Amino acid sequence: MTTITPSPELIASFVDIVGPGNALTAPAEIAPYLVESRGLYRGTTPLVLKPGSVDEVSRILRLASETRTAIVPQGGNTGHVAGQIPREGKADMVLSLERLNRIRDIDPVGNVIVADAGCILADIQKAADDVDRLFPLSLGSEGSARIGGNLSTNAGGTAVLAYGNMRQLCLGLEVVLPTGEIWDGLRRLKKDNTGYDLRDLFIGAEGTLGVVTGAVLKLFPKPLGHQVAFAGLKSVEAALALFDRASSLCGPALTGFELMPRLGIEFTTRHIPGVRDPLQTIHPWYALIDISTSDSAESAERMVEGLLEAAIADGLIENAIVAQSEAQRRTLWHMRESMSPAQKPEGGSIKHDISVPISSIPAFMAEADAMVMAAMPGARICAFGHMGDGNIHYNISQPLGADKEAFLGRWREMNAIVHAIVLKYNGSISAEHGIGQLKRDELASIRSPIEIELMRRIKHAFDPAGIMNPGKLLRQD
Amino acid sequence: MTTITPSPELIASFVDIVGPGNALTAPAEIAPYLVESRGLYRGTTPLVLKPGSVDEVSRILRLASETRTAIVPQGGNTGHVAGQIPREGKADMVLSLERLNRIRDIDPVGNVIVADAGCILADIQKAADDVDRLFPLSLGSEGSARIGGNLSTNAGGTAVLAYGNMRQLCLGLEVVLPTGEIWDGLRRLKKDNTGYDLRDLFIGAEGTLGVVTGAVLKLFPKPLGHQVAFAGLKSVEAALALFDRASSLCGPALTGFELMPRLGIEFTTRHIPGVRDPLQTIHPWYALIDISTSDSAESAERMVEGLLEAAIADGLIENAIVAQSEAQRRTLWHMRESMSPAQKPEGGSIKHDISVPISSIPAFMAEADAMVMAAMPGARICAFGHMGDGNIHYNISQPLGADKEAFLGRWREMNAIVHAIVLKYNGSISAEHGIGQLKRDELASIRSPIEIELMRRIKHAFDPAGIMNPGKLLRQD
Repeated sequence: MTTITPSPELIASFVDIVGPGNALTAPAEIAPYLVESRGLYRGTTPLVLKPGSVDEVSRILRLASETRTAIVPQGGNTGHVAGQIPREGKADMVLSLERLNRIRDIDPVGNVIVADAGCILADIQKAADDVDRLFPLSLGSEGSARIGGNLSTNAGGTAVLAYGNMRQLCLGLEVVLPTGEIWDGLRRLKKDNTGYDLRDLFIGAEGTLGVVTGAVLKLFPKPLGHQVAFAGLKSVEAALALFDRASSLCGPALTGFELMPRLGIEFTTRHIPGVRDPLQTIHPWYALIDISTSDSAESAERMVEGLLEAAIADGLIENAIVAQSEAQRRTLWHMRESMSPAQKPEGGSIKHDISVPISSIPAFMAEADAMVMAAMPGARICAFGHMGDGNIHYNISQPLGADKEAFLGRWREMNAIVHAIVLKYNGSISAEHGIGQLKRDELASIRSPIEIELMRRIKHAFDPAGIMNPGKLLRQD
Repeated sequence: MTTITPSPELIASFVDIVGPGNALTAPAEIAPYLVESRGLYRGTTPLVLKPGSVDEVSRILRLASETRTAIVPQGGNTGHVAGQIPREGKADMVLSLERLNRIRDIDPVGNVIVADAGCILADIQKAADDVDRLFPLSLGSEGSARIGGNLSTNAGGTAVLAYGNMRQLCLGLEVVLPTGEIWDGLRRLKKDNTGYDLRDLFIGAEGTLGVVTGAVLKLFPKPLGHQVAFAGLKSVEAALALFDRASSLCGPALTGFELMPRLGIEFTTRHIPGVRDPLQTIHPWYALIDISTSDSAESAERMVEGLLEAAIADGLIENAIVAQSEAQRRTLWHMRESMSPAQKPEGGSIKHDISVPISSIPAFMAEADAMVMAAMPGARICAFGHMGDGNIHYNISQPLGADKEAFLGRWREMNAIVHAIVLKYNGSISAEHGIGQLKRDELASIRSPIEIELMRRIKHAFDPAGIMNPGKLLRQD
């Protein structure tokens, strides 16, 4: 398709749908919708629309289809692959879900919450907490990320190990299709084998097949027991062995297993207020172990004590502490969640969001480190993340004293080096952040032609006019 | 499409691909592939093909696409909706996966097994057990059901509560597309957000989008503790309250919660050798509660004792026993799994595989019972199943002394009565068995036109020649 630059009349028609108070055209007002947190992409748009109802979303998309106007849905603008940012030099219109932020229903007996797509993740967590339930999706940007974006990117975060990612936490969806038709798939059923799995097709589609406007999400009973341990380890191999041990002992009570390098502890203690090294001793690697139990507080205590005793006896752990209060538990998690922001004051950081089969993590890390250091002597590798899911945020901070721009100019080159090793271990180049603009062409180059072709056919079947978030995930025809 | 009746030359070309020893044309040899267990459907076919490799499957489908020959994939032929049976009066060819039954790899450290689609479910369970791991999918027909069929129907069974259904147990797939092209999606990753979710589209597609030939399945550590309790209850409401209690106390350690009516106990004790009523007292309803713990055998004991004590004290349970050995645990499960076969000697049985939100089960049951009894006085309702998933097998045995054929002639009428109440509670008319031929037209009538249209577009995008299991799930154009 060719995107047509909208005429003033067309812009007026879109503005009419939401009302002038909910349509932004002034450059200063539009600016925040055009940049993403890492500053790699900057888009352009003639118009930001903030619909206040599903019906308005429907009318926007109908008009967009009729006029072949490209639409970019945006939630909290916290995505890391520029899927939510309009393309540069095009006239994509931004459809912000921010005003669709109502919790429609919450049922603690049925363990579901039904929410507008524009609800902020933390507000969903709070609403669940208010009825003594847990909504387990948790990630660094939860204070501003919106649930529609979490769905469209199949968000992961820190509780995937026990509760799964967004795909596993969603029972039903409401989606406005590119034609403006509304698919009501707001089901609350745990089992429903009635035809093709449309829900899972929209989840993770990054807004390229339609606009998610509402969702039925699962809630869980709140655990009675919660323990967090922090352990110093001599190697990534020891971390893998410890994970095996923890996962066998705790089963689904193991709710988090995060790996951190010494460099990450140094960065966070240096730059994040209130973060201190929890241990007196220094170790090359660290694990944060989170255990939640439903039956009693004591069973979590028994598990964490049993695990640490056995692991210390077997030499898997060099030193460890167990948080003694909920405040201490939060402090440990805060350190882990500060690992990415703490890299900012250290200069440029080249990011990778990869996964490999868990048993391959030590070999992957050793090979990637060697290749990266050979290509860029002095690079400071800060690889951390969700070891229990095989998902490592393999980030590279610039060498001390290096020029930031020159360093970031090597982004693609370093990606190629790291991703080649990921592929050798049959891993994923995007474990949880998605494809967007950042990894679109790389995806096309690493996947089989038939796989890309099947995705293109799905895209065409759902969005023949090509108006939905064009150029994201797949190259536009 | 018009299905062309195959010429002898065309048949010979298909036979050539697998060799004459693996192609059946004699009516007596073909017969078992044409009928399903409930005897509702009987199909016709000129040829049953038993390929011995993925390459042979690919060549069969390529030839089928070129010649517009309809292909019906079949696993263990245990499906309940006739999705695996060729259409009557057409010339669909049956593609049996039975010879593709090799376990390709098993990795207890990575907790995955990679298997051909024709592996029998019980063989997968055994292979996992041999390396001290659990493959949790478990259902009545596991001794003959094949894993490709389990995938294509998104099979459920008795362990869904804790482990999910097939969709949650599968990490990757290998699929031969209608053109004969092979999609290699055999990934072993827990997190992989790289484009549309093709895997979940093929899972549950009932062989209408391609032929699943291989899969990567998840394994789990074997639980150390296992307890099974059997409780007599005064009502379905009490069962719901007991489930709430059990699920809060046990969390993910609650691995099964099955509901059974008194009539089911009578049928099984009457007809199934070795089954005896475990309780001395008589109750209108019963629950089988299965608890598995990873940390210790004692924690399962603590949970089951704590649950039963509290539930008896609160009047939720009238009487209960806890199995004292693995043999006793198996006996209790055997009774539950015999509930469906035990209906056979009682005459005809009209089946429903429904789900509703769990909190609506008591109201659904009361209304359905009243409507069924009003329409068919003397009907013997034997509604049992996976209460923890909201999934009830709402089966109706014929009135005593009724004529079986006349009774079964009212199948659609009784379905309409029960399904109307299911829909009132926003439930599903097929919780775990799928759509096949049996529920195809009913699905089209209850779902929104846009939902059916999206499914049609997916079907057309994947199978433009319409050769893959035509007329199943969706009406053929």
